[in-house]
Amino acid sequence: MLTYFNQAHVLHAAPYEYFRGDKVVAFEKPERADWVASRLRERGHVIHSPDVDALQVMGQVHSERYLRFLFTAWQQWTALAPGNAELAPFPSVWPVRTLRDDLEPDNFTAKLGLYSMDNGAPILAGTWQAVKGGADATHAAALAVAHCKAPSAFALTRPPGHHAGADFMGGYCFVNNAAVAAQTLLNEGAQRVAILDVDYHHGNGTQSIFYERSDVLFVSIHGDPLTEYPFYLGHVEETGQGEGAGFNVNLPLPAGASVEDWFAALDHALARISAYAPDALVVSLGLDTFAGDPISKFALQPDDFSILGRRLAKTERSSVFVFEGGYACVHLASNTVNVLEGFELTLL
Amino acid sequence: MLTYFNQAHVLHAAPYEYFRGDKVVAFEKPERADWVASRLRERGHVIHSPDVDALQVMGQVHSERYLRFLFTAWQQWTALAPGNAELAPFPSVWPVRTLRDDLEPDNFTAKLGLYSMDNGAPILAGTWQAVKGGADATHAAALAVAHCKAPSAFALTRPPGHHAGADFMGGYCFVNNAAVAAQTLLNEGAQRVAILDVDYHHGNGTQSIFYERSDVLFVSIHGDPLTEYPFYLGHVEETGQGEGAGFNVNLPLPAGASVEDWFAALDHALARISAYAPDALVVSLGLDTFAGDPISKFALQPDDFSILGRRLAKTERSSVFVFEGGYACVHLASNTVNVLEGFELTLL
Repeated sequence: MLTYFNQAHVLHAAPYEYFRGDKVVAFEKPERADWVASRLRERGHVIHSPDVDALQVMGQVHSERYLRFLFTAWQQWTALAPGNAELAPFPSVWPVRTLRDDLEPDNFTAKLGLYSMDNGAPILAGTWQAVKGGADATHAAALAVAHCKAPSAFALTRPPGHHAGADFMGGYCFVNNAAVAAQTLLNEGAQRVAILDVDYHHGNGTQSIFYERSDVLFVSIHGDPLTEYPFYLGHVEETGQGEGAGFNVNLPLPAGASVEDWFAALDHALARISAYAPDALVVSLGLDTFAGDPISKFALQPDDFSILGRRLAKTERSSVFVFEGGYACVHLASNTVNVLEGFELTLL
Repeated sequence: MLTYFNQAHVLHAAPYEYFRGDKVVAFEKPERADWVASRLRERGHVIHSPDVDALQVMGQVHSERYLRFLFTAWQQWTALAPGNAELAPFPSVWPVRTLRDDLEPDNFTAKLGLYSMDNGAPILAGTWQAVKGGADATHAAALAVAHCKAPSAFALTRPPGHHAGADFMGGYCFVNNAAVAAQTLLNEGAQRVAILDVDYHHGNGTQSIFYERSDVLFVSIHGDPLTEYPFYLGHVEETGQGEGAGFNVNLPLPAGASVEDWFAALDHALARISAYAPDALVVSLGLDTFAGDPISKFALQPDDFSILGRRLAKTERSSVFVFEGGYACVHLASNTVNVLEGFELTLL
């Protein structure tokens, strides 16, 4: 599959993260993307570097104040104290309900909290370059599909994007690549774009970015947010608002749901997408639905990822795949490639 | 001064806290209240234990779901894992804008984040007892004033309360004692109550609890939230809403403001309170305006606290003093007593 690889991803490498209360070696690490790139090369796929600039599209799906903060955050942080370059800043206060989020405070910690939904998106020296490179790769993949270079393309990048909202980061995510892909397709002439999010975790950022729009249908299959991250969004009754009413579909499944239940939800998702008749499809491709994933609780097996690819191909839509979560070292790359090859081979 | 002391305060004693990114020995510690109690006894004041139950009044100023969470949080936390009794739970994800706060998730960490504005209010084994005891002491002080046992009374308790909103904790605070005092006075027949918050930090919780009510005037003098905690509330333009329009007055001063500027703001505050003609006054008595306070940046000297007490007495209102912040070990107790005695002696 035509793949655009964000080589700047290595510049964002958090040494550790907080998982269920403990400080642990980071699950979201550079090897994730490198393994997939190697596997793709081994299988004969050609990998390209993006030669486009996504900044303008990023500004269509993120607020200016947030992008400005992301761009300058490391500089602001390291200017505060000499030792800060050795640390990632950590949000410690945030604007819950009744507190204001319309003003950006001068204090750096307050700004960080304003733009964070959790403490799982550490800003490092290379974070901006890595996430900007990711948006560029995604933009390139979407342009390739829009300009009929290929029926499908893959944006291979990390950190992932689907938890990032219009003006907040969280859950490893800073810039919403799926939103960048969808917006690019619309900019290039699509009337309607569907986003299917198959990551184990609900794509709260993507949902909230398009919640009041009818030109993007967002459909997500994920662990029930009552018990699973990101907790505060992803319920069935969230169906869109205003212009977007009816264009948001959440299909939560209980932690531990079976493969059969997962594919039944996929059938439901694809039927809704088919009824929407989009000009293109964006797939937020999380691989953490794998039974062996260390931080998730679904049960898919390697072959199921091939089946997923084949079912997606049957929608017969131009498709942009965007790499999201997936943390099972050994199987991550093969599961990813199973989806992509399942898709491509069905198109033959 | 007639003082009600929350002896259960010792049950909430966090060993450390996070301050400007570092893990440090807690500033908000049991000695704070004990020093003040000792000083009051030395000076001949009689200290009482509250023999009232504030639960019903707490339910008038806090949401039921929040109080239910506070009451059960330690039990929920320690039931999760055997080692948890050695730790305080730590919020790691929270509902920023576009995320939902109307549903309480089942996941404990998600609940903790739902009810937190920062990571500065650690829940410990004795937290509920301590904060309940604090509300009881405050309720007792307000009842004493309402029933004319004395023209003024002091609720000596910690942890403080003014950052706690109707359904969130933060900044050391869990239950909003100033709100409990004001609501008690209203329940006992007052038509209008003014709350004057003189803590260095804006009383965001108190403001938000009464923001749409005209029966409580909230006036606060504090460090400019653009640079000072709690950052997201406390600006001049926040003047109340709906029924409460015009009944919220913020008087922020820049960090480093002079004593003269502070007293000019106090004059302004007292004039507004006088125009409101309240039946009673609640003073959120933070002592961190002291020049020697380790975490604040105003410049008041010990004698200035006597002047504050005298100026407050000249309002000629029945007054309930509620202990809030103040972290300068050596001077905290004498500064507190300076306010109270300045007030009382002026009434003679």
